[in-house]
Amino acid sequence: MLEALKQAVWAANMELPRRSLVVYTWGNVSGIDREKGLVVIKPSGVEYEELTPQKLVVLDLDGHIVEGELNPSSDTKTHLELYKAFPALGGIVHTHSPYAAAWAQAGEDIPCYGTTHADYFYGPVPCTRGLTREELDEDYEKNTGRVIVETFRARGIDPVHVPAVICRGHGPFAWGKTAAEAVYHAAVLEEVAKMALLTRQVKRDAEPAPAHLVEKHFSRKHGPNAYYGQK
Amino acid sequence: MLEALKQAVWAANMELPRRSLVVYTWGNVSGIDREKGLVVIKPSGVEYEELTPQKLVVLDLDGHIVEGELNPSSDTKTHLELYKAFPALGGIVHTHSPYAAAWAQAGEDIPCYGTTHADYFYGPVPCTRGLTREELDEDYEKNTGRVIVETFRARGIDPVHVPAVICRGHGPFAWGKTAAEAVYHAAVLEEVAKMALLTRQVKRDAEPAPAHLVEKHFSRKHGPNAYYGQK
Amino acid sequence: MLEALKQAVWAANMELPRRSLVVYTWGNVSGIDREKGLVVIKPSGVEYEELTPQKLVVLDLDGHIVEGELNPSSDTKTHLELYKAFPALGGIVHTHSPYAAAWAQAGEDIPCYGTTHADYFYGPVPCTRGLTREELDEDYEKNTGRVIVETFRARGIDPVHVPAVICRGHGPFAWGKTAAEAVYHAAVLEEVAKMALLTRQVKRDAEPAPAHLVEKHFSRKHGPNAYYGQK
Amino acid sequence: MLEALKQAVWAANMELPRRSLVVYTWGNVSGIDREKGLVVIKPSGVEYEELTPQKLVVLDLDGHIVEGELNPSSDTKTHLELYKAFPALGGIVHTHSPYAAAWAQAGEDIPCYGTTHADYFYGPVPCTRGLTREELDEDYEKNTGRVIVETFRARGIDPVHVPAVICRGHGPFAWGKTAAEAVYHAAVLEEVAKMALLTRQVKRDAEPAPAHLVEKHFSRKHGPNAYYGQK
Repeated sequence: MLEALKQAVWAANMELPRRSLVVYTWGNVSGIDREKGLVVIKPSGVEYEELTPQKLVVLDLDGHIVEGELNPSSDTKTHLELYKAFPALGGIVHTHSPYAAAWAQAGEDIPCYGTTHADYFYGPVPCTRGLTREELDEDYEKNTGRVIVETFRARGIDPVHVPAVICRGHGPFAWGKTAAEAVYHAAVLEEVAKMALLTRQVKRDAEPAPAHLVEKHFSRKHGPNAYYGQK
Repeated sequence: MLEALKQAVWAANMELPRRSLVVYTWGNVSGIDREKGLVVIKPSGVEYEELTPQKLVVLDLDGHIVEGELNPSSDTKTHLELYKAFPALGGIVHTHSPYAAAWAQAGEDIPCYGTTHADYFYGPVPCTRGLTREELDEDYEKNTGRVIVETFRARGIDPVHVPAVICRGHGPFAWGKTAAEAVYHAAVLEEVAKMALLTRQVKRDAEPAPAHLVEKHFSRKHGPNAYYGQK
Repeated sequence: MLEALKQAVWAANMELPRRSLVVYTWGNVSGIDREKGLVVIKPSGVEYEELTPQKLVVLDLDGHIVEGELNPSSDTKTHLELYKAFPALGGIVHTHSPYAAAWAQAGEDIPCYGTTHADYFYGPVPCTRGLTREELDEDYEKNTGRVIVETFRARGIDPVHVPAVICRGHGPFAWGKTAAEAVYHAAVLEEVAKMALLTRQVKRDAEPAPAHLVEKHFSRKHGPNAYYGQK
Repeated sequence: MLEALKQAVWAANMELPRRSLVVYTWGNVSGIDREKGLVVIKPSGVEYEELTPQKLVVLDLDGHIVEGELNPSSDTKTHLELYKAFPALGGIVHTHSPYAAAWAQAGEDIPCYGTTHADYFYGPVPCTRGLTREELDEDYEKNTGRVIVETFRARGIDPVHVPAVICRGHGPFAWGKTAAEAVYHAAVLEEVAKMALLTRQVKRDAEPAPAHLVEKHFSRKHGPNAYYGQK
């Protein structure tokens, strides 16, 4: 069942330690089959060295396990909320990569200081508000997803144009058309978060890049007039 | 004698350079057999490349060498004090990992800025006071252990809930149910110490994570209602 | 056609990931045959693992493709402007290496704080002004090159004495007599940018190195009285 | 001639890139045969991958080449001054390792913030004054050595107790009883310089470690009552 998707989600998970985005089991990747409405996700707390495509868990969008003998990632409900709210998403990843997590712990958006950022994220990467105690007690992981969705809607951000978020006091989620692209965006996010911090260290009150530069770089890579890469 | 424990303590020691927690001989791991009251520890100043299970030293809790031809780690008395005061400990590790050591040198607790920290340490990782000249002259390593114990008791911290400490002007000790878990906690501590410093660099006066988030994350992984990982 | 140059430009491109100067496809190297007036450059968006000398693109200095089936680097026009304005250049490289990019994002010259810098760059590495919206709309990549040239001319900097620049809000370009030397200078620039940031972290208002030290170190390695290295 | 010393100096040089203390050719190690009064040193500008024991240069203490077809390191005269002034030295190393170089560029001593430092350096690692234009014009490398010697004498520092220095605006020199020990001290210095900078980042006005802790740690490893390591 969903063998190709399982293979892709497994490969995307294995990319996390290779890109130094996780230590131990601090991350998880999922992918979705939109036609069948089924999500494939990493099992909770399983070491990457021991992960195989067969150990992945298959769920429907209500969180019912359809296949798999292990518990799914403890962050599964967050993934499901994002898939339900953002139909363009084909893959999602969560990590605790240190630079992105530092911005999340400081509770600040990652400013768009330059073209490396603008090539992938059209504007700042938003930091959510923290969950209230009530939200946390009611359903922590589900409400984490809802607060992400709330952030994008309230601020009018298209999740295709800004394919990542940092959750206050927690860490990043990133996404893409596929599980592989989600991990690619998570890696870019970490590099961009590092560059942004270095930029502040050079100059505490550095200015964000001007709007026309951000617009230009984003549209070099995205949209009908993109001219980066091959056809 | 204690072959399985020696093998485990040896493997835990070898994990230190693999995780980049030590350079040269700057660290040591021990494990205890609580039934026999015997501790197995790394010999002093021996390079990791040359370390074998047979070179480990076996001592009783009073510090008498029971087996082994080499001098035990110069920090042995600190380990023994911790084993005597904290009965839940099965393994202990000392390193000079740079981010944790920096907090120790600055003389500050490592604040709990987010969920990466809260997943493992229920509150700040405490920094001890420095030893007085008298304590230092009397018995440096033994009193280092005593000051750690004093810190946990005076502040009402359960060493199972906060399995690490930083010693002022010195560096970290971490522990766990086994030698392997002690090293795991030392690696997490270093990552958390790094993230905390990066957080301050983003925002000098960043706030610690709210109590309900810390509580939630710690209890996801620990205690009767834990739901992280597999059964 | 130009097989030796293609081989050299290919090897210089492959050095970028080996020196950790790029992640994914964030960089490109070109080389020029001055007699034929032809430039060899990396194709746009091609992964380094898949790059071969045959995939490189050959263009004339007006940007007409002479050989190659792929689109050239999106930064090609910047390279061409530099080759046209600075006749001493035999190779050019662009990266988003994080420390150099951080200075570019902060919009500051990289100060010459010491001999490591002075051994390669005779004075600060200049940061260009940002492009105006008009320059950007008219021809972004070409005008990026023009603004670099303007910077060197307005400040009276010889591009042979300072073989690198950082473009405001963007990142570094470096060059040399060959493609290999361009990459060598890009690697030195990143190390020097890192050291300069660490220097500021030690002492916010650190002073640049005195002129006589800069002069001495640069002339140890460059010019008629150089005495570094072998004949 | 001096085959064992050449082998040792070659091995110590090769350790520099392995410990990430140099990039390209930015470092050099020498060793001395005190009985013969001959120094073996790396040739100038030779890549480490191409270095063999046969390529090393042998000189007497006046700088006359006794054996070898290549130019010796451009820093040779600095090494010779140190060997002449400090009879206990058996090996010397110069690098541009980035954290030590940052302190040198900032022109500050590396403070002794804790036990990692005190285990090897009895007090701050001194930063020299800069050379005057006259000293630089007269004989740069020789006077670099003289200013190091001046620093230790004026401040009453025993080079055996503090086996390293940072030269203002330049970078570190370290030494030891052998070439291997010199490199060992250079690696420790870089780690200590990094920890010191991280310490300042945690707390700008961090206090140096108290004298009794410095004394204790240094004497655990050095002198008649040392008890670290094996007999």
